[in-house]
Amino acid sequence: MEKNAISPSRAENYPEWYQEVIKAGDLAENAPVRGCMVIKPWGYALWENMQAALDAKFKATGHVNAYFPLLIPLSFMAKEAEHVDGFAKECAVVTHHRLKANDKGELRPDPASELEEPFIIRPTSETIIGHMYAKWVKSYRDLPILMNQWCNVMRWEMRTRMFLRTTEFLWQEGHTVHATAEEAVEETLKMLDVYADFAENHMAIPVIKGQKTPDERFPGAVDTYTIEAMMQDKKALQAGTSHFLGQNFAKASGIEFLSKEGKQETAWTTSWGVSTRMIGGLIMTHSDDDGLVLPPMLAPQQVLLIPIYKTDEERKQVLEYVNSLKKELEAQTYGGNAIRVKIDDRDMRGGEKAWQAIKQGIPLRAEIGPRDMAKGEVFVGRRDKGPKEKSSQARADFVKNAPSILAEIQATLFARAKAFRDSNIVRIDTLAEFEAHFSGSEEFGAKSGGFASVHWNEAAMGHEVLAKLKVTPRCIPLDSPNEEGKCIFTGKPSSKRVLFAKSY
Amino acid sequence: MEKNAISPSRAENYPEWYQEVIKAGDLAENAPVRGCMVIKPWGYALWENMQAALDAKFKATGHVNAYFPLLIPLSFMAKEAEHVDGFAKECAVVTHHRLKANDKGELRPDPASELEEPFIIRPTSETIIGHMYAKWVKSYRDLPILMNQWCNVMRWEMRTRMFLRTTEFLWQEGHTVHATAEEAVEETLKMLDVYADFAENHMAIPVIKGQKTPDERFPGAVDTYTIEAMMQDKKALQAGTSHFLGQNFAKASGIEFLSKEGKQETAWTTSWGVSTRMIGGLIMTHSDDDGLVLPPMLAPQQVLLIPIYKTDEERKQVLEYVNSLKKELEAQTYGGNAIRVKIDDRDMRGGEKAWQAIKQGIPLRAEIGPRDMAKGEVFVGRRDKGPKEKSSQARADFVKNAPSILAEIQATLFARAKAFRDSNIVRIDTLAEFEAHFSGSEEFGAKSGGFASVHWNEAAMGHEVLAKLKVTPRCIPLDSPNEEGKCIFTGKPSSKRVLFAKSY
Repeated sequence: MEKNAISPSRAENYPEWYQEVIKAGDLAENAPVRGCMVIKPWGYALWENMQAALDAKFKATGHVNAYFPLLIPLSFMAKEAEHVDGFAKECAVVTHHRLKANDKGELRPDPASELEEPFIIRPTSETIIGHMYAKWVKSYRDLPILMNQWCNVMRWEMRTRMFLRTTEFLWQEGHTVHATAEEAVEETLKMLDVYADFAENHMAIPVIKGQKTPDERFPGAVDTYTIEAMMQDKKALQAGTSHFLGQNFAKASGIEFLSKEGKQETAWTTSWGVSTRMIGGLIMTHSDDDGLVLPPMLAPQQVLLIPIYKTDEERKQVLEYVNSLKKELEAQTYGGNAIRVKIDDRDMRGGEKAWQAIKQGIPLRAEIGPRDMAKGEVFVGRRDKGPKEKSSQARADFVKNAPSILAEIQATLFARAKAFRDSNIVRIDTLAEFEAHFSGSEEFGAKSGGFASVHWNEAAMGHEVLAKLKVTPRCIPLDSPNEEGKCIFTGKPSSKRVLFAKSY
Repeated sequence: MEKNAISPSRAENYPEWYQEVIKAGDLAENAPVRGCMVIKPWGYALWENMQAALDAKFKATGHVNAYFPLLIPLSFMAKEAEHVDGFAKECAVVTHHRLKANDKGELRPDPASELEEPFIIRPTSETIIGHMYAKWVKSYRDLPILMNQWCNVMRWEMRTRMFLRTTEFLWQEGHTVHATAEEAVEETLKMLDVYADFAENHMAIPVIKGQKTPDERFPGAVDTYTIEAMMQDKKALQAGTSHFLGQNFAKASGIEFLSKEGKQETAWTTSWGVSTRMIGGLIMTHSDDDGLVLPPMLAPQQVLLIPIYKTDEERKQVLEYVNSLKKELEAQTYGGNAIRVKIDDRDMRGGEKAWQAIKQGIPLRAEIGPRDMAKGEVFVGRRDKGPKEKSSQARADFVKNAPSILAEIQATLFARAKAFRDSNIVRIDTLAEFEAHFSGSEEFGAKSGGFASVHWNEAAMGHEVLAKLKVTPRCIPLDSPNEEGKCIFTGKPSSKRVLFAKSY
């Protein structure tokens, strides 16, 4: 039996495999603050690449960035009733502004510094941004407002898991204001498309664009749209959401404008966000029993060059060869940027370096020793193939083909994930089948699980079978055709199928 | 008398002029959270350009980015005695993790959610990062650690002012660990050089690199180095600091390593940071009575094209001309990037647009109407010259010369600021002169103020005259020559001159 780098394997213990991939890939670590993580350089570089790609797309669609305060006055939260219901139970509350030593010399919040009105750390910023927008918007000429903010937010989650659900996380939140409902809906769907495009073409994660059912909406939204991805354990991951907020938040914040016709009107708003949670989705979509697998478009290093040598003389010659190879590769572009190449010249065994490259998900690695050098070759391994499937290639070919090989790896990862997902969506037409489908274990590879496409009616919200199975409606796919049917939970009429799944 | 865009002028009321420049430039606004600000798109775009330039310099000097938690356990703060003294009085404290409605239906922190150990919102991250480093560092092979973090921090300041001193601000904090004191000192000074290079060559702000006197050190540091700039009211602004922390924080956090010789040793650390405060410095260095003046290297838009037309037909033709001009300009590079050009095609008077461009500090603006078009010309204004000093230029010349004109503006801003600063540093050798020098009003242009270069001895720390005058030692300039003298406060011997000033 072949030995893999990650133990346990996905089949043995999927949740633990996930933690081990993060550890072996040196992506992040639990922090000494409940439910928080430290994002280590490799994980953060990945986030930086995600940010750069998303930010360019936001700007290309006319958005600008801004920054709003971390703290939100308690009274702001209370303005939108559903919103406060959704977030009040998981708010970090700031109550004092000074520390003081007590009798025993221990630091404590100074009672004299208690705030008249406590603040919460933003779990999301609709209320405070809405407050500012109400000041900025006077006339239809001020619309639309198309802003985005990159920041940290905090939700006091009880059960946390690195990247997927952490008390603090990094994200972007777009907040826009429009003169009409139509424009706001258009914006909501446009940003959903931006997210889907990013997920599929940069992260190589196939996603289903859909509308959330009412019970799964963002607190205070009229409509929530989502991109849903399938992980390798067949659970769903909500990877990004875009909300049409109607006039709910505009009314709560008083965002009004004088229309072209001279009428005072209430504006329409949207909000949309993706977060570091997407990194969890990336890990669970592509990684294997040898660790992380990174899509080339986002990999902080796309090619790792590993010099192999014994003597000092060999070292000198090989490093010279490898340095000039690096320059040639960097003169090539992939995805619009110079190829990102690194030389691993640490004082370590070559095999160890190759394994680290595998565990960190680097798309292409090339080992180069005196013999490869003499033949003008490099010894290449691809992360989308087995760790031992390596081949000698002429140096010039390797350089010339590097962009297309990276593109091929990117395409392979997407195609693989899409084939897996598509083969794990089933149409189910009876409640008994539905129960059987989701009653198996949650283990990786188990027959149970995957997405179920079923007829459903709003009256089924909160159905006991769903609670029992821990299955939720994920979305009504936007491309779902109209199809008359009967809700499998209530027997009531349904006109579209809805996707159900266990989820993160 | 000529009328200016900003009222009051610098001479009339400098502090209020500052607020008005921010408002007219649409950079930021006070937030509904005590002491916090909202950074508006124009201000944030400036910050993004600053981040991009600094981040590239950090990476070029071998640093990587990471992200550590926002919240710090109270017990961590207590580990380094001077550090806690320095920050305990201005900490936002998180004590609860849930809200609950009281009898009257008002939201309040839920008493049942009180945290066993409160958290503070990071005022700086030495303690929590040190905790992680202690886990990561085992042997000399793990050193150096060269990490940086871009994030928000919070210090509960009593008197706040946009950009210069806000409760929450954005910054970067570098934190490094080294095997020897020498290496750590070298890093500290290297990053000071990076800051000075950035300040002078990107922000066009001349700075004096120096060492802080003991009373002005970062709480817990062995040595603090600073870059000090002079504002137009002759006050000093500490624009960035780099700290040699010795073994103080390493001991407090337990950062130890096995040396090459097999000995367990305590590591040496540094930290260094610049923040959105630098934007305040930029405003006060270059802006004039017509508003913001941006150095071309950082301006979000470097050239603004203003189409002038009356009829729809003219509009169409002028826009076509302006669009092709934009493309030609964008094909030119300045500072290593394509020139950033924008067309202001809003439905507004051209004159109004030109004034807005001036108030927002855009380096170059060009008005183009049917007559300019017919002559193949553009009508150009430079922000480093008077608002009415405009000139017609042949279109081709304007395009060809744009990079060199931007470079000229950048150089002019720096030279102007440097000449102003250099003419406002005086050598003072008696306490009486010193008092007279700083006893005038603080108004812009007043004779009093500027930097005073005086002999000083540590025994003068906390001298009553300094407290009375609100003057502080800014730094011992690194290029200050050795010069025997007597401290003007105590008469004790001194071997170097120290710069004193009123400061932000």
